[in-house]
Amino acid sequence: MQLQASAYDGQTLHLIAPLAPNVNDKGTAFGGSLYNIAVLCGWSLLRLKLNEAGLNKKNIVIQEAHTRYLLPVTGELRASCTLTSDVLTEFLHPLQNKGRARITLTVTIHQQDKTAVEFTGNYVALD
Amino acid sequence: MQLQASAYDGQTLHLIAPLAPNVNDKGTAFGGSLYNIAVLCGWSLLRLKLNEAGLNKKNIVIQEAHTRYLLPVTGELRASCTLTSDVLTEFLHPLQNKGRARITLTVTIHQQDKTAVEFTGNYVALD
Repeated sequence: MQLQASAYDGQTLHLIAPLAPNVNDKGTAFGGSLYNIAVLCGWSLLRLKLNEAGLNKKNIVIQEAHTRYLLPVTGELRASCTLTSDVLTEFLHPLQNKGRARITLTVTIHQQDKTAVEFTGNYVALD
Repeated sequence: MQLQASAYDGQTLHLIAPLAPNVNDKGTAFGGSLYNIAVLCGWSLLRLKLNEAGLNKKNIVIQEAHTRYLLPVTGELRASCTLTSDVLTEFLHPLQNKGRARITLTVTIHQQDKTAVEFTGNYVALD
């Protein structure tokens, strides 16, 4: 996929991938690649936040995901996911107390200034 | 992914992929690879059925998908999707009359005799 992180400000993570290795039979971004960049954007942001909280040993797994393809992506694949400190705190509390917690993250893939893909994933962190 | 078709009887398509190139940080199948084999299983079955109906020029796109990860996959990735002739007829009728039709397909990924992943995809066929 040639996926890479393009920006991270402590709250929002941006991942990008070029179109060429992720193309479908119609010359636009393959739906599976769009899913992958989305699921990894949410997973990676959670990994970063857990590591920053000293919870490097927790596993993170995707449990359920809903993906809506709204527009074809005809250029670079650009995903972004935001996790505010309030939502993070609500997630870390049961994780530190019970060893396990669940969180829903929304990842957006943009095509120019429009939303091309809306991804909602339920992730679980556990030992 | 090293994905390949393993069986097709005209109604059910089976796709398989080895674990090694599709592994995650936990040594089990990556959720993105599981999504990809599922979305392609549904897409490929629809492509086969449309080609058999002489509709080779129709495009097929995934519009929406819901994925539930129930069990980790620790061996070969095995996806299957079935499209009965009744459901196919209901799909082909508006497609031939209006040039466009939508269908919901369910793809299952098995881990031994249990369901590991349940995928439901809404696909659209159009010009």
